[in-house]
Amino acid sequence: MLKTPVIVLNMKTYTESTGKNALDIAKMMDKVSIETGINMAVSVQSIDIKECSDNISIPVFAEHIDPIKPGSHTGWILPEAVKSVGAVGSLINHSEHRLNLADIDFCISRAKELDLDQIVCSNNILTSKAIATLSPNFLAVEPPELIGGDISVTTANPDIVSGSVNAVKDIDDDVKVLCGAGVKNGVDVARAIELGSVGVLLASGIIKSKNKEKIIRDLISEL
Amino acid sequence: MLKTPVIVLNMKTYTESTGKNALDIAKMMDKVSIETGINMAVSVQSIDIKECSDNISIPVFAEHIDPIKPGSHTGWILPEAVKSVGAVGSLINHSEHRLNLADIDFCISRAKELDLDQIVCSNNILTSKAIATLSPNFLAVEPPELIGGDISVTTANPDIVSGSVNAVKDIDDDVKVLCGAGVKNGVDVARAIELGSVGVLLASGIIKSKNKEKIIRDLISEL
Amino acid sequence: MLKTPVIVLNMKTYTESTGKNALDIAKMMDKVSIETGINMAVSVQSIDIKECSDNISIPVFAEHIDPIKPGSHTGWILPEAVKSVGAVGSLINHSEHRLNLADIDFCISRAKELDLDQIVCSNNILTSKAIATLSPNFLAVEPPELIGGDISVTTANPDIVSGSVNAVKDIDDDVKVLCGAGVKNGVDVARAIELGSVGVLLASGIIKSKNKEKIIRDLISEL
Amino acid sequence: MLKTPVIVLNMKTYTESTGKNALDIAKMMDKVSIETGINMAVSVQSIDIKECSDNISIPVFAEHIDPIKPGSHTGWILPEAVKSVGAVGSLINHSEHRLNLADIDFCISRAKELDLDQIVCSNNILTSKAIATLSPNFLAVEPPELIGGDISVTTANPDIVSGSVNAVKDIDDDVKVLCGAGVKNGVDVARAIELGSVGVLLASGIIKSKNKEKIIRDLISEL
Repeated sequence: MLKTPVIVLNMKTYTESTGKNALDIAKMMDKVSIETGINMAVSVQSIDIKECSDNISIPVFAEHIDPIKPGSHTGWILPEAVKSVGAVGSLINHSEHRLNLADIDFCISRAKELDLDQIVCSNNILTSKAIATLSPNFLAVEPPELIGGDISVTTANPDIVSGSVNAVKDIDDDVKVLCGAGVKNGVDVARAIELGSVGVLLASGIIKSKNKEKIIRDLISEL
Repeated sequence: MLKTPVIVLNMKTYTESTGKNALDIAKMMDKVSIETGINMAVSVQSIDIKECSDNISIPVFAEHIDPIKPGSHTGWILPEAVKSVGAVGSLINHSEHRLNLADIDFCISRAKELDLDQIVCSNNILTSKAIATLSPNFLAVEPPELIGGDISVTTANPDIVSGSVNAVKDIDDDVKVLCGAGVKNGVDVARAIELGSVGVLLASGIIKSKNKEKIIRDLISEL
Repeated sequence: MLKTPVIVLNMKTYTESTGKNALDIAKMMDKVSIETGINMAVSVQSIDIKECSDNISIPVFAEHIDPIKPGSHTGWILPEAVKSVGAVGSLINHSEHRLNLADIDFCISRAKELDLDQIVCSNNILTSKAIATLSPNFLAVEPPELIGGDISVTTANPDIVSGSVNAVKDIDDDVKVLCGAGVKNGVDVARAIELGSVGVLLASGIIKSKNKEKIIRDLISEL
Repeated sequence: MLKTPVIVLNMKTYTESTGKNALDIAKMMDKVSIETGINMAVSVQSIDIKECSDNISIPVFAEHIDPIKPGSHTGWILPEAVKSVGAVGSLINHSEHRLNLADIDFCISRAKELDLDQIVCSNNILTSKAIATLSPNFLAVEPPELIGGDISVTTANPDIVSGSVNAVKDIDDDVKVLCGAGVKNGVDVARAIELGSVGVLLASGIIKSKNKEKIIRDLISEL
C-alpha cells in the first residue's frame, strides 16, 4: 500500500504529461523520491502506465478505472488491464471523471479484489464522509472550484481538509485522507499535513511549471 | 490509411485479449497477414497499444478516443496520447461506447488533424448515412442486437450492409464501409465483400474461440 | 414530511400509469388511504404531478429531480418546478436513473432548501450507509436484480433490508428506511416492517396487475 | 405541423419561465400571435406542458424527450407522456441536453410514430447535414458559444445559418431550418429569414427581458 506522507502527481491529459513527457516527469519524481526518501507516486494516462511502471520504482496509479468486469466493453478501462501493465492502484471518481454512487462502490470492490490501491476523490466534507463508508484505502478531497487555480486548498479552504479528516475518522479510521487543488509549494504541503491529511494530490502545480524539478523539490522542502 | 479488403479484430476488454493475451493474438494476426498478404488490423485497449504497435507490423487502432483536447481531463482518452504510443487510428462511437453527435464530429475532426484513421460505428442504415456526412475514412455498421451472437450480420440482415453501402455512397463515395456482428468464418467474410463492404469488424468470433489461429485462417479462406 | 408506515407507489413510465391512467391509479390509492387511514404516496412522471396533486390528498412525489439551479438547462427537471406544481418530494438516484455522488449530495441539499422530502435510493447495504451520511429524510433500498421481478426483496434478500436499517441507524438515526423490489402483497409489506423499514416502494406489483384496487387493499391487509 | 415562418420561444428552466411564469409568457406569445397572425410556438418544461396547452392556442412543445418506450424508466421523459398532456412536438438534442446519434434517430422515429413535430438541434453545418439525413420536420442550428449571449448568430456567424440551410437542402428538402443563439430583435429575425431559415429559436432574449411583450412585438416587427 502507498506509504505516507506522500506527494501524488496526477498527470491528467496535458501535452506536457503525455507519452515521453509523462515518462520524463515520472523519472524526475522517482529520482527525487529515491534521493530524499520522501514518498511519491504518479497517476498517469492508461497508455503511459506500462512505460512508467517499467522504468520507475515509485508507485504508478491509473487516473481512472471503469465499473466493468472483463467482457464486451469496447474502449472502457478495465481494472484488470491497468494492473496487468503495472499500476498498483487507481484514482476513482476524480471531479473531472465522476461516477455514480453504485459504480464508486463497484470500482472500490473490484480494486480491492485485484489488490489495487484506491484513491477516491470527494468534493466536500459530506461526500468525504459518504465515501469513507465504502472504506477505500485513500480518499482525496478536492474542492472543484480550486482545481487548477493559484490558491491552495490549504489556504483557501483549510476547513474542508480538517473537516474531511474528522468526518472520515468518525466513519472508518483506516481510510487515509489526501487533499488537493491549487497545491504549489512546500508551505502548502506542510499545511496539508498539519490539517491532518497524509499528503497531497496535485497536477498543474508541477505539470505547468517551467522548472518542474525545482517545484518537486520545493514541495517537499518543509517535510 | 488502412488497406482494404481488411479484417479488423476488436479486442474489447475480454480476459482473453488483455495484456499479454492481446499481444499474443495480435502477433498471430500479424503472422497470418504477412504470410497470406491479406490486410488485417487490431483495435486494442489503450493500455495495450504501445506493446502491440512495438511488436507487430499490421495497423493498431485504439478502441475509443474521447472528445477532448490536451488539458485537465483526468482519466479520459486523449487522441494525441493513443497516437503517441503507436495507434494509427481509432474506433469511434462503438455501440458499447456511444458518443453524442457533436462529439462524433469533434472526434473525427481531431483524428483527421492528427492523421489518425477513423472507423466510426453505426447501428442501422440511417445512422450510417448520418455518419457519412461527417466523412470519416471508414464506417462500420453493426446491428447491436447481433453483436456477440452466433448468426452473422451478413446472413441475419444482409440488407443493413448493402443498404449502408448504398446510403454512404450517395453521401460521400470516399467513406469505406465495414460491417460486423456475429462474423465467424470465411463465408461470412466473402458475403460481406459481395454486399459491397470492404471488410469486417469482429471480436468474439476470434477472441472466444479455442483455436484462434484456425479461425483467423478460416476467416480469409474465401478471399 | 411523509408519515409512516407508508406505501409508496412509483408510477415509472408505463402506459398503464401515464396521463389519465396515472390519475386514475392515484385516486384509487387516495381513496383507500382515506378509507383505511393507512399512509400512502405516489411518485409520478413530471407531466402528471400537477393533475395528481390537484386531485388527490395523499402526497405526490416527483420520480426524479436533476442537479440544477434555475437557468439555462433545456429539458432537465428543475427541483423548483416540481414543487411549483405540487410535488412534496422526489425520488433521487433511483436505480433506473442514477446520479453521481456529488449530484446526489447536491439534489438532497436543493430539496431540503425547497422543503421537498427526499427518498434517495440505494442498491445495497454499503450504498445505504453512504447515502445515510448525506442525511436525507428517507432512503429506499432496492436490489436492482429484484426490481420488476416476482420475488419480494423481503423474501429473496431480507438481510439487505435489515442490514440497511442497521447501517443507516449507525450513521443517522433520523433517516427512515423504505425497501422495495418485487413487493406484491400484504405479507411482503408486513415483513418489510418487521425487518425495521418504515414501508415499501413498489411499482409493477400494482401497475401491471389487472385488479389494481384489490392489490392495493391486499398490500395493507397485514398492517 | 408547425406553420412557418415562426418564432419559437424555449422557456428552458429559468425562474422567470417556470410554473405560473411560464403560463404568463405563453399567454403573451399567444395573444400577440393571434393579434398579428404571426406564427409562434413555445417549448416548456415537462411540468408546464399541460397548463400551457390547456390555456393557449399556439403550439406547445416539450423541451426534450428521452429515447425510451413505455416501461420501467423512472424519472425519464416518455414521448407518449408529453403528447398525452398536449405537446404537439419536442425539441430533440438541444446543446444543453445532447443525445448520442442512435438515440437522436430513435427519438425522431418515436416522435414520428406519435405524430409529434421534431425540432432537432445542431451545433454546426456538418452536424446540421448529419441530422438532415434522419429527416426530422425541423432542424435548429445554434452555435453553443453564442447561446445566451448578446450577439445574434445572424450577425456573429451568418454563414452557419446559410450553410446549414444549403447543406440540409442537399440532403432532404423537406427538412425546415430554424436558427438560434443570441437572437434579440426584429432585425435579427428578418436576417434569419433572409439567410434561408424559416424562423428562430430563442430563450433569454425574451425570458430575461424586463418588458417581455415589447420584445415579442419587436421580434416580429420586420416580418
